[in-house]
Amino acid sequence: MLPNNPYMIDSEPFYLNTGDEIPMFEAAAAARLPVMLKGPTGCGKTRFVEYMAYRLKRPLITVACHEDLFASDLIGRYLLKNDETVWVDGPLTRAVRMGAICYLDEVVEARKDTTVVIHPLTDNRRVLSIDKKGEVLCAHPDFLMVISYNPGYQSVLKDLKQSTRQRFVALTFNYPEPKEESRIVATEGGIDADTASRLVTLAGKIRNIREHGLTEGASTRLLIYAANLVGQGVTFKAACTAALLQPLTDDDRIQETLSDLIDDLL
Amino acid sequence: MLPNNPYMIDSEPFYLNTGDEIPMFEAAAAARLPVMLKGPTGCGKTRFVEYMAYRLKRPLITVACHEDLFASDLIGRYLLKNDETVWVDGPLTRAVRMGAICYLDEVVEARKDTTVVIHPLTDNRRVLSIDKKGEVLCAHPDFLMVISYNPGYQSVLKDLKQSTRQRFVALTFNYPEPKEESRIVATEGGIDADTASRLVTLAGKIRNIREHGLTEGASTRLLIYAANLVGQGVTFKAACTAALLQPLTDDDRIQETLSDLIDDLL
Amino acid sequence: MLPNNPYMIDSEPFYLNTGDEIPMFEAAAAARLPVMLKGPTGCGKTRFVEYMAYRLKRPLITVACHEDLFASDLIGRYLLKNDETVWVDGPLTRAVRMGAICYLDEVVEARKDTTVVIHPLTDNRRVLSIDKKGEVLCAHPDFLMVISYNPGYQSVLKDLKQSTRQRFVALTFNYPEPKEESRIVATEGGIDADTASRLVTLAGKIRNIREHGLTEGASTRLLIYAANLVGQGVTFKAACTAALLQPLTDDDRIQETLSDLIDDLL
Amino acid sequence: MLPNNPYMIDSEPFYLNTGDEIPMFEAAAAARLPVMLKGPTGCGKTRFVEYMAYRLKRPLITVACHEDLFASDLIGRYLLKNDETVWVDGPLTRAVRMGAICYLDEVVEARKDTTVVIHPLTDNRRVLSIDKKGEVLCAHPDFLMVISYNPGYQSVLKDLKQSTRQRFVALTFNYPEPKEESRIVATEGGIDADTASRLVTLAGKIRNIREHGLTEGASTRLLIYAANLVGQGVTFKAACTAALLQPLTDDDRIQETLSDLIDDLL
Amino acid sequence: MLPNNPYMIDSEPFYLNTGDEIPMFEAAAAARLPVMLKGPTGCGKTRFVEYMAYRLKRPLITVACHEDLFASDLIGRYLLKNDETVWVDGPLTRAVRMGAICYLDEVVEARKDTTVVIHPLTDNRRVLSIDKKGEVLCAHPDFLMVISYNPGYQSVLKDLKQSTRQRFVALTFNYPEPKEESRIVATEGGIDADTASRLVTLAGKIRNIREHGLTEGASTRLLIYAANLVGQGVTFKAACTAALLQPLTDDDRIQETLSDLIDDLL
Amino acid sequence: MLPNNPYMIDSEPFYLNTGDEIPMFEAAAAARLPVMLKGPTGCGKTRFVEYMAYRLKRPLITVACHEDLFASDLIGRYLLKNDETVWVDGPLTRAVRMGAICYLDEVVEARKDTTVVIHPLTDNRRVLSIDKKGEVLCAHPDFLMVISYNPGYQSVLKDLKQSTRQRFVALTFNYPEPKEESRIVATEGGIDADTASRLVTLAGKIRNIREHGLTEGASTRLLIYAANLVGQGVTFKAACTAALLQPLTDDDRIQETLSDLIDDLL
Repeated sequence: MLPNNPYMIDSEPFYLNTGDEIPMFEAAAAARLPVMLKGPTGCGKTRFVEYMAYRLKRPLITVACHEDLFASDLIGRYLLKNDETVWVDGPLTRAVRMGAICYLDEVVEARKDTTVVIHPLTDNRRVLSIDKKGEVLCAHPDFLMVISYNPGYQSVLKDLKQSTRQRFVALTFNYPEPKEESRIVATEGGIDADTASRLVTLAGKIRNIREHGLTEGASTRLLIYAANLVGQGVTFKAACTAALLQPLTDDDRIQETLSDLIDDLL
Repeated sequence: MLPNNPYMIDSEPFYLNTGDEIPMFEAAAAARLPVMLKGPTGCGKTRFVEYMAYRLKRPLITVACHEDLFASDLIGRYLLKNDETVWVDGPLTRAVRMGAICYLDEVVEARKDTTVVIHPLTDNRRVLSIDKKGEVLCAHPDFLMVISYNPGYQSVLKDLKQSTRQRFVALTFNYPEPKEESRIVATEGGIDADTASRLVTLAGKIRNIREHGLTEGASTRLLIYAANLVGQGVTFKAACTAALLQPLTDDDRIQETLSDLIDDLL
Repeated sequence: MLPNNPYMIDSEPFYLNTGDEIPMFEAAAAARLPVMLKGPTGCGKTRFVEYMAYRLKRPLITVACHEDLFASDLIGRYLLKNDETVWVDGPLTRAVRMGAICYLDEVVEARKDTTVVIHPLTDNRRVLSIDKKGEVLCAHPDFLMVISYNPGYQSVLKDLKQSTRQRFVALTFNYPEPKEESRIVATEGGIDADTASRLVTLAGKIRNIREHGLTEGASTRLLIYAANLVGQGVTFKAACTAALLQPLTDDDRIQETLSDLIDDLL
Repeated sequence: MLPNNPYMIDSEPFYLNTGDEIPMFEAAAAARLPVMLKGPTGCGKTRFVEYMAYRLKRPLITVACHEDLFASDLIGRYLLKNDETVWVDGPLTRAVRMGAICYLDEVVEARKDTTVVIHPLTDNRRVLSIDKKGEVLCAHPDFLMVISYNPGYQSVLKDLKQSTRQRFVALTFNYPEPKEESRIVATEGGIDADTASRLVTLAGKIRNIREHGLTEGASTRLLIYAANLVGQGVTFKAACTAALLQPLTDDDRIQETLSDLIDDLL
Repeated sequence: MLPNNPYMIDSEPFYLNTGDEIPMFEAAAAARLPVMLKGPTGCGKTRFVEYMAYRLKRPLITVACHEDLFASDLIGRYLLKNDETVWVDGPLTRAVRMGAICYLDEVVEARKDTTVVIHPLTDNRRVLSIDKKGEVLCAHPDFLMVISYNPGYQSVLKDLKQSTRQRFVALTFNYPEPKEESRIVATEGGIDADTASRLVTLAGKIRNIREHGLTEGASTRLLIYAANLVGQGVTFKAACTAALLQPLTDDDRIQETLSDLIDDLL
Repeated sequence: MLPNNPYMIDSEPFYLNTGDEIPMFEAAAAARLPVMLKGPTGCGKTRFVEYMAYRLKRPLITVACHEDLFASDLIGRYLLKNDETVWVDGPLTRAVRMGAICYLDEVVEARKDTTVVIHPLTDNRRVLSIDKKGEVLCAHPDFLMVISYNPGYQSVLKDLKQSTRQRFVALTFNYPEPKEESRIVATEGGIDADTASRLVTLAGKIRNIREHGLTEGASTRLLIYAANLVGQGVTFKAACTAALLQPLTDDDRIQETLSDLIDDLL
């Protein structure tokens, strides 16, 4: 490992263990099995992978996937420098070489060629084929592929193929238990335990009405935002409106319901 | 902050506070929370962000989003200069480096890779990943991400994903109250209070029939246009026809209704 | 203003005022308000803007919009010249710099990024953002944005968004009154007043059956074509068939109806 | 006119006048009016425009339009030559400069930007705007725009817009009268009058059943092909099968009907 | 003709005449008429055109068409060589220059611009327009255009336009008669007459159930494959399963039917 | 064969023969017939081709196909090196030259031009046409084309055309028999025979409920993953949940069913 590797995480990220995800991730890493993190928006998947990278002392290279992410964005490309074409590694190739954790966030959003590129890296071959250089790269023993995936978005067009899914050990994430979530909101949002607890109670109610029109519940992140606003002197009601009600929906009727839920907690 | 920064707003923009949006924006800026401005066309979202940039004394970099705006348009790209490829920062990268407010106007219109690029900038990481340079840029402490969004346009194809929405504190805008709007129209349109008030009364009536066929009500901007025309000697009726009736609709029957509304005010 | 500016219109175009469009355009130009010209094909919108450019003594830069017109076609791009990339202004940038009237003909046909590019030019900011150069250009005081738009073509896919529409003062055009149209046809088509009048009578009848199958009535331009053919010795019936009946429709039954209308005038 | 212009037609093409299309084309050319040739496949539209180019002694530049024909294919583009970008005129620009007839064959097949490019060339402006060079080219007085168009193909997606149609004088073509068609088939196919007449009789019968399943009748070209095969010693039945029956349809039942029609003429 | 032309076919391909296709092709070649070969997969169309090229002693240039084949792939393009752009002929241009047979295999699969490019080569003009070079190339007298086309694939999207079809003399191909097919399978597959005959009997039965679910019958090529496997010591049943049953279908029920048909012949 | 060929497989891959696939592949290779491997995800197709390459002592070049794989990715392209364009062979061309097995994994995922490129390589011609170089390459006698294909994915858009299918001998793969699969899981997963046997029993039950909602059964690979986790000290239930239940489905009800199946085996 290079000293001063910019991909190393220097200080321990705040992470509260909510199940057996830590030993399971360690077992997968020890057995060199690729890992899939399943769960809703803002429940801590990205934080978890940062925490595990710190804990395992491995560099972490994160790629946020999107519809215009091509395989060459991951692998690398030739650039023109001083009248010469020079090869520049992409983030995946860098991770494969240095033995980093490569984290493909929201992998279903990427173009299909991306998912195929990772196939030979996620079975017993553990190789990356750089077609443009005619090079086949064997992964560093510490290389670990991690992807995240939100099953709530599943649609016909944006689904992981079975031939991709069946290459990963899957860990499921969900919102933390109320007690733990209150601790997280208080710590990260910088507010007192009571206000944090009220925010978590509100979130619980919002997540319950989720099936009645809200496509997704309030994330822990939004609770922390609300806490941050309260910390800046904003009232509880105004903070909840700006950080929870308005971001979650544009629907007038659901907004009214949410507004009533907030009023109940004043 | 650079002296003579071209992105600084030198003179105070005219802005009338219509709710608690100013303290809320200040709280979000202090807590470094990304901000989403929700509201209809021409109700003052862009003016508000200019006003806040002036008030907070931060540079403002605005990007009007559209279907062909790629992530690389925001981040930057390599250009060929004197036989060498030279990196040129895009507007988002510039804002991240200098600690500016980056305002993505009508963000749902942009390509999907754009919204993903801003994800790591809008959670606690506050980083911008410039994949093509292999550089990860930590945002300047004063950097603030602001997006605007018109819920009235919402469709299946053009909607903000929950994983994007739940990264923003949201402020809702609407047309100003009649009294305030009259002041704005008189000030900006350069006409007397009475004519301004008649225009605002007309706008109120038009906004009421909105549900009966008009997809959107008359914006404050169009009222100022009508005022400008009156200031140039055009009659009230002709000004309203050219600046309100014709821009709003091509439908003969709605035009008749609008024409009657104008006649009622002569 | 540059002497010998190639965009200046040297001789007065023939234009017959049919309403209050001239003073209204002058008022909008004086107040620096963007102008939208609404109306059917071939009724004189392009001629009108040429006439106003001549009258206001401003250069006119016209861009015919189409599905493959990108924002960069309007703004400009880098070209390679003698081993160097040189920036070349597009027509919109040229107009913004020199204070010309920029006329975007059939603007709904353009790509969506085009309409967004003109947004900051069509509100009180009056700026053009040249992202590729990192330059923000303030419009010359004489710069005027004019667009044309045919409401008859309106479809779900090809419609102006409200956020674009509500940036323009709109002038409506239609076919001229019979007396004026006869004068235009006689002058431009080089024929006697009687034949011109018969052509205009025919056009009136064709425009009446428009709702019964013809998507659009006969334009003044086609009447002038018919007049030109008569001027070349073609018979009235043959000229009307070649210049009116055949261009307007491929439908056998409507052709028969039009043929009968022509016969009625022999 | 350049001597040895490769676009000049040296020898008179064989063309049989079937109506008043020759004087009408001459009138349009004299009045500088754009011309649209309407009619089915293989009825002589291309031959007619070659004949008129020869008769008017003007060069002819033909462009076969297709879905991937961009405006730049017509206008021209910059090419890299010896480290320099050199402008190369496209066929339309060449025609505009030299005063040629520019014939856009099957214009509805072209991309939409193509049809828009020809707009300023087909009204009284007669200019071609070469945006990439910032050049506005006035058409040579002899320049004439001619397009062809097959109404039988008309569909929602592939239709000429009224704003394009209403810029042309239209001449309608159809299959020649039997007597004339027999003369054409005998002359071009190199066979005796009797066999030619039998082929034309067959074509008449095929064109009659057209509405019952054949999307288009047998073209004069296919009759000439059949005549050519007979001239090479192929039997009448085999020639008609190979040159008429098989090219026209893949449908078993219609093939049987056509086979019976051929047998009737043996 | 160049000596050592790599496109010449040196040794006579094995071809069994099954109708009058040889004299018909010779007549078309003599009369310079383009030829369309119609028929199902693997029935010998490609072999036939190789045979005719050998027989007529003309070079053969074959292009397998596909959805991403552009006109420029056929015509040629500029390439950068030693700092200079050099024109490189595509296969069609090469054929037009040297008087080769140009065989476009499965032409409906190609992009539409491809079919249009061949139009001026397939009527009496016999020219190829190389727009990028501003060159119009007259075809060598021996140039012959041949296309293949499988009517069984016909769909709305992938159909030959009448304006393309009506430019070709069409020859229809089908599976050979049992006796001839047995000879072919024995000769090409290197097995005894009896086994070849059993394979052909099986193919006949498979082709009969074609309408009941199989989209296409077993090709002669697959019969030769089965014969090859038998020649390598594979049993008749295993060879038929691997070379006929499995390639033809994935449907369990049809596979069972085919399996029964194989068993009947053991 | 080059010494030190990086495409040679040095050590024998672990492979358990489950039918007659080895002699059949050897017969096809001897007769130079292209081979198609049909079967579900993770049942050993890739391992089999690696084993056969080792056994036949031929190099193996694997290409994972995807929606953005163009023909030029397979064949090669010109790259700019030191101011010169240099041709670089793609993986298919390399295989054709050196006589390797070219394995196109999941070939239906590739772009259509890819499947057409391999046509002349998969019939008796055995040639690769490199259009961009004007080169026609005859395949090395040892060259062997192998493709894989999962019939379970078959859809209208992603299907192999008959004209492609009928060029291959097809071998069908399925999950191994329980006894063999237990041996594989124990060997590869590094666990005792009893646990391996329980995992295989579980897989059998999961594959049986496949038709009731699971699109594909549990692959052998996932069983090995579960075994690996158990080997790392994870409990049987947790390992099955992470390596089988979660990767296979996001459906709550099917997850419950799977959970019950796991509990039955504790």
